[in-house]
Amino acid sequence: MIRTGIVGLSGYSGCALLEILLGHPNLRVTYVSANNTQGHVDDIWPHLKGRTKLVCKKFDLNKAAALCDVVFLAVPHTVAMKLAPQLLTKNIRVIDISGDYRLNTANEYKKWYGKPHGDAKNLTKAVYGLPELYRVKIKDAKLLSNPGCYPTAAILGLAPLVSIKSSDIASVTIDAKSGVSGAGKKATQSLMSAEVNGNFKAYKVLNHQHTPEIELYLSKLAKHRVPVTFVPHLLPINRGILETIYVRLSKKMTFKSVYSLYKKFYKTEPFVRLAAEGRQPELKHVNHTNFCDIGLVVDEKQKIVVITSTIDNLIKGAAGQAVQNMNIMYQFQETAGLL
Amino acid sequence: MIRTGIVGLSGYSGCALLEILLGHPNLRVTYVSANNTQGHVDDIWPHLKGRTKLVCKKFDLNKAAALCDVVFLAVPHTVAMKLAPQLLTKNIRVIDISGDYRLNTANEYKKWYGKPHGDAKNLTKAVYGLPELYRVKIKDAKLLSNPGCYPTAAILGLAPLVSIKSSDIASVTIDAKSGVSGAGKKATQSLMSAEVNGNFKAYKVLNHQHTPEIELYLSKLAKHRVPVTFVPHLLPINRGILETIYVRLSKKMTFKSVYSLYKKFYKTEPFVRLAAEGRQPELKHVNHTNFCDIGLVVDEKQKIVVITSTIDNLIKGAAGQAVQNMNIMYQFQETAGLL
Amino acid sequence: MIRTGIVGLSGYSGCALLEILLGHPNLRVTYVSANNTQGHVDDIWPHLKGRTKLVCKKFDLNKAAALCDVVFLAVPHTVAMKLAPQLLTKNIRVIDISGDYRLNTANEYKKWYGKPHGDAKNLTKAVYGLPELYRVKIKDAKLLSNPGCYPTAAILGLAPLVSIKSSDIASVTIDAKSGVSGAGKKATQSLMSAEVNGNFKAYKVLNHQHTPEIELYLSKLAKHRVPVTFVPHLLPINRGILETIYVRLSKKMTFKSVYSLYKKFYKTEPFVRLAAEGRQPELKHVNHTNFCDIGLVVDEKQKIVVITSTIDNLIKGAAGQAVQNMNIMYQFQETAGLL
Amino acid sequence: MIRTGIVGLSGYSGCALLEILLGHPNLRVTYVSANNTQGHVDDIWPHLKGRTKLVCKKFDLNKAAALCDVVFLAVPHTVAMKLAPQLLTKNIRVIDISGDYRLNTANEYKKWYGKPHGDAKNLTKAVYGLPELYRVKIKDAKLLSNPGCYPTAAILGLAPLVSIKSSDIASVTIDAKSGVSGAGKKATQSLMSAEVNGNFKAYKVLNHQHTPEIELYLSKLAKHRVPVTFVPHLLPINRGILETIYVRLSKKMTFKSVYSLYKKFYKTEPFVRLAAEGRQPELKHVNHTNFCDIGLVVDEKQKIVVITSTIDNLIKGAAGQAVQNMNIMYQFQETAGLL
Repeated sequence: MIRTGIVGLSGYSGCALLEILLGHPNLRVTYVSANNTQGHVDDIWPHLKGRTKLVCKKFDLNKAAALCDVVFLAVPHTVAMKLAPQLLTKNIRVIDISGDYRLNTANEYKKWYGKPHGDAKNLTKAVYGLPELYRVKIKDAKLLSNPGCYPTAAILGLAPLVSIKSSDIASVTIDAKSGVSGAGKKATQSLMSAEVNGNFKAYKVLNHQHTPEIELYLSKLAKHRVPVTFVPHLLPINRGILETIYVRLSKKMTFKSVYSLYKKFYKTEPFVRLAAEGRQPELKHVNHTNFCDIGLVVDEKQKIVVITSTIDNLIKGAAGQAVQNMNIMYQFQETAGLL
Repeated sequence: MIRTGIVGLSGYSGCALLEILLGHPNLRVTYVSANNTQGHVDDIWPHLKGRTKLVCKKFDLNKAAALCDVVFLAVPHTVAMKLAPQLLTKNIRVIDISGDYRLNTANEYKKWYGKPHGDAKNLTKAVYGLPELYRVKIKDAKLLSNPGCYPTAAILGLAPLVSIKSSDIASVTIDAKSGVSGAGKKATQSLMSAEVNGNFKAYKVLNHQHTPEIELYLSKLAKHRVPVTFVPHLLPINRGILETIYVRLSKKMTFKSVYSLYKKFYKTEPFVRLAAEGRQPELKHVNHTNFCDIGLVVDEKQKIVVITSTIDNLIKGAAGQAVQNMNIMYQFQETAGLL
Repeated sequence: MIRTGIVGLSGYSGCALLEILLGHPNLRVTYVSANNTQGHVDDIWPHLKGRTKLVCKKFDLNKAAALCDVVFLAVPHTVAMKLAPQLLTKNIRVIDISGDYRLNTANEYKKWYGKPHGDAKNLTKAVYGLPELYRVKIKDAKLLSNPGCYPTAAILGLAPLVSIKSSDIASVTIDAKSGVSGAGKKATQSLMSAEVNGNFKAYKVLNHQHTPEIELYLSKLAKHRVPVTFVPHLLPINRGILETIYVRLSKKMTFKSVYSLYKKFYKTEPFVRLAAEGRQPELKHVNHTNFCDIGLVVDEKQKIVVITSTIDNLIKGAAGQAVQNMNIMYQFQETAGLL
Repeated sequence: MIRTGIVGLSGYSGCALLEILLGHPNLRVTYVSANNTQGHVDDIWPHLKGRTKLVCKKFDLNKAAALCDVVFLAVPHTVAMKLAPQLLTKNIRVIDISGDYRLNTANEYKKWYGKPHGDAKNLTKAVYGLPELYRVKIKDAKLLSNPGCYPTAAILGLAPLVSIKSSDIASVTIDAKSGVSGAGKKATQSLMSAEVNGNFKAYKVLNHQHTPEIELYLSKLAKHRVPVTFVPHLLPINRGILETIYVRLSKKMTFKSVYSLYKKFYKTEPFVRLAAEGRQPELKHVNHTNFCDIGLVVDEKQKIVVITSTIDNLIKGAAGQAVQNMNIMYQFQETAGLL
């Protein structure tokens, strides 16, 4: 029984974490904190009434260190980089769900997140927690950086092709659509129900901070720089990301060859599912699960592969993947608490 | 061609007003103002781009008075009671969409709106703008108080029965459901898209400030006090109110007698439609229109009448009714700009 | 490890059952069938891909009897009354989620469901599976009749008051709102997305087949006939029922006395939660759970109690409650598979 | 006052047409028909109650010919090609909203619509009704073929670039998202509210029948073949199409040059609006209007233009554009009935 803590309980990812951890067979939740809201978990998340007696307080390093073996940081970016080094010093393992440790230089961080990075030292030590690619490193991580929601769907959707056929890829275009929970819980005029209902729009066109994260890890796979064109959109629903990825090839590939490449790549993965030929993944197939579902269509003549990749942004795109990483870190069954 | 102004353009009612007035054959919009947002109407409401060249500025009494014959106040309550007397002094007719002049004493206002009333003098002079009941008085109104959205649906749903059979009514229960635009445009955590999507709840149970307005005007019709039990709920959609009204009778009435009572009462009304026997009104039949649709079911044995009354809260419940009132005030065709 | 079967897998309740049973610690799912759709469960419910290897076939009595200890009937009404007697003869315990065994006479069934009842013999033997009221009888049930979704919320919302203060109740009005999954999966023009989005309406006003079920079990509690006025409405969302229940009293009661009556009545119940004073239950607090959340407001002067009662129609209103009943029947922990 | 008829009143486009025509200053609606549903317009479309006394009957050629100058065909494809030649023979002008006359050979039609074309003769005579490109030809059209919804947004989004810089275009990718009304009103299991709520998916990937229509008219503009990669998606809302169009260039272009090219191209167009630099169009800006709103972002380094093009699929994508065409055909003000 390991002892786990959640910092940032009042956000949607913190809540999703608690939901999963309460049903996990190998651990106890011993600590929860939040900076905006304190009190019984009941009062913050009424749907959890009767499921826990935990009380949420302001973050206290000594308490967290005394009560936890591992702490999940479900806090806004810039906050995680302050808390992580303190927890690491106390020998607590840290799983950071924010964007603070995903890019590998302080310069890149500054460029895309608009703030200087305050913990450049740990930036290079953090392990990027995409289990399908980095399972071995994750096992020993002290500071785990949980991937962004858009990058999770993008990288899993592209990994087989980029790993094995990178030299045949001419261009990559990612048209991403996300539910509103991805934007967080803070009151914002443009995310009010009356503004979002029945609406749809693109935002941060060619300018989203997840773009360099996608490029960074694809480039590692390809062993050369892979630029991507990335445009996110806002769906008028709560959960789920679907990305339609257009890969233009410089060399012909058949559907069969692409399909078998993916089949093989994800053969033993518990949380990646490939849609049968002619079928398309849908948000409702993955919402409230830790699965990433992938669909493939190939236009052989035009040399185009269309990949559709879909996840629940709060689960495989945040809390679920964080728990999957923790399962690997503690050698639990990788699906524990997640199926 | 009369000259009209809108104060409070940045809210949903102000916008709905401008949409209607731009298509109205008998007037020009000569003045728009708002306190939170200024600039070209385009920038505030991009869907109106190309439809007007109006520029929105902070309210300026002298400008408004110089440019307008009539001004619509689409401002929050407590603001209207400051602006109305100033405009009236300048001899401008005022149509107030807020709740400031709907209750007839400063005490009642204080009790339900939680603030002292700053213009008690005009409180008793304001004309309540429910055309179906007060058409004659509306004609000469200097200060028109436009009814609340919930009261419009409630009073129109009950008026025939309460006017003619008040002595046979044992109790009135109003279960109201409204879309989120009724709550306004201000960023509020509980009205964020991620909180409202897929959700439903009651709020201000037995405690909503529209309750005394409903009771006041029903009591006038009945010529004795008519208490109502009123519970509003929040629908996860933008527009529309549907109220299910349960009237328990002390005396048996047949469906036929109730139906013909309503048929007769609303015979010549351009904006009240009675659903045929066995049919129910739906939000989508009235949304984006100035209609109030009413359905009737009677349980003769249990002596219960179930009235369903539905309107678009922004049109018949606010901007549309305000224009209908203005049409009466200026002897335009009552449906001008509204069909 | 008991062996369980689901008949009617292609419907929403059948699916919700399978989701719950796959995570249940004390059983295996050994048999699934459906009449409209056959094949791998994956093909019928793609979100369950990788979670089961079950294959769904047309119902076969001998196979079901050979493979199961208990069978859940998630079939349309009139179908259950054909299958249940056959399964009972084979000594299989039956949990029927349809409406076929909820009313206690064939006449009542005919009147409200419009078809003759083909298994009048078992009608009186069936145990009504509302655990909070009938736990003792449920334990030994051979044929369990799972309550309707509307009745579950209504009866749980009213049981304390009706059981203990029935003589002080003057009238009961139930204004119910349900998501669309309650209407089933069959293609129907009026339930198409384009018809339902942004819409709201009442239906079957004073005429819904769940009315006699509510009245029957409330009358048993009260030990005299309790008529209810029941009006259901359709919410433009998938899941959840919220009922606003208006009880007019013939005698004054304070909020405190009503609240403590409910507190005491549900003290040891694992799935009924009472909202604190001033709080209201919301659909999102109970969706995807087996909880029934109840809120209370009292108007002491007008002698009115407003009860808001909310459940997930597919869980506490169908599949979850069925599993809770099975847990009782097999003396498993009552919350097994449900928390 | 011209006399207009609508064939296919029971569908969403037929209804949208009637809504617009009832408010049009230069015509009367003299004839409405439908094959599935007959009766008073009230009964088919309750929201139009009180706005028309028209009665809808089965199509009758002689009646239509006697009563109308121009007939709108809002019928399914394959039906239009039967009715159009009959009406033309009677000297009635025809505006066809179906896909029957959009492709220019019977072979192409057969390939994409899966049925032989029964009126090849008129196929080449039909005028493609995209006013922004073909205003002059439209004026004299006897048989007008109204563009598809996806092609309208795509072609308007691409026309300036394809007309003027076609030789610099390396590839065109169109990621399209549409509300459910585009799929029509017929009961279909996959379009049921419970299936669509909270969901999102791609469909007919690289295989949609609007693809050749887009390619055909872009190729005419470019004066050489322009292949497009087209993937449509289903939004869980009623109305509106937003297409995110990725144009890869073979030659650098600045934002400024692209923007001014569009500005100039659409300078005098009443229904095309260009979003200011840094702004994005949204569905809610165009829904219930005849506008096409276009946004532009350029990645100069990567040589990519991202165009977002949005329309209301039932208005600019169907009924509104049909009326705009009619306005041109009869030399009415082009915006009559549409602003």
